[in-house]
Amino acid sequence: MDYETRIADHDHEALRLWLRLLTCSKLIEGEVRRALHGEFECTLPRFDLLAQLYREEGGLSMGDLSKRLMVTGGNVTGIADQLERDGMLVRNAAPLDRRQVQIQLTPKGRREFARMARAHEGWIAGLLGGICEADRRRLYDLLGALKTSVAAQVR
Amino acid sequence: MDYETRIADHDHEALRLWLRLLTCSKLIEGEVRRALHGEFECTLPRFDLLAQLYREEGGLSMGDLSKRLMVTGGNVTGIADQLERDGMLVRNAAPLDRRQVQIQLTPKGRREFARMARAHEGWIAGLLGGICEADRRRLYDLLGALKTSVAAQVR
Repeated sequence: MDYETRIADHDHEALRLWLRLLTCSKLIEGEVRRALHGEFECTLPRFDLLAQLYREEGGLSMGDLSKRLMVTGGNVTGIADQLERDGMLVRNAAPLDRRQVQIQLTPKGRREFARMARAHEGWIAGLLGGICEADRRRLYDLLGALKTSVAAQVR
Repeated sequence: MDYETRIADHDHEALRLWLRLLTCSKLIEGEVRRALHGEFECTLPRFDLLAQLYREEGGLSMGDLSKRLMVTGGNVTGIADQLERDGMLVRNAAPLDRRQVQIQLTPKGRREFARMARAHEGWIAGLLGGICEADRRRLYDLLGALKTSVAAQVR
């Protein structure tokens, strides 16, 4: 019995799974980028920033916003400046600490993001439409287990 | 019967699946970045470039290399310059067209990448170790179906 071969096989199998997950993720992300740009002349970091602000009707501080956007990166201040010029967001003094700047979507910003978000959901539903609902549910559950496994290791 | 509500529910479910997939992907990628940097002072684009060259013992042209690295981006020429200075790769004239530059790992480059690749497989196996082999296999198959679904839409 060659234990080392078995360990190597196990590793290869995990690696293949990870590379397939990464491929799926990059494929979908690439499509979302293309569609956002093509239909709304919007970048992915801009879309993600809008999504964060949309969820927080009361607004967010620049610090909280930056923390939430670590995933996609992008220059938060630069994107916020641009969105302010486009009339999509406003900067206000925070209600509890006037020295803190709070960022908030304008009604126009909320309206335009809602339109993009609906389109985005449609693209995703289309891209994932080739697998049946039962399999999508299985995939969702298995990815939940994966997330738990990874999070336990990261801690 | 409200069809629109059902459509919206279907979209939400696909969106939730995509966001969970993206979260898993970013979590694992983040861990790989951290570990590469911590153990080998290596960036992810540098690791990916080495991986491509390792697979092609005969070497690759700069153009082919750039095409294969679209996923992670990074400045291919800058990374290649750095790796050449570190004695990890050499630039040669291509055997069939002397005007074309072919890039190839040195024996040192191959040795050092092999060491990193082994560690990388170990990290991935560790991160994915919290789910049983049968579930990993199911996940692998379902992601295969997802890849097919996405690819069919992209075409």
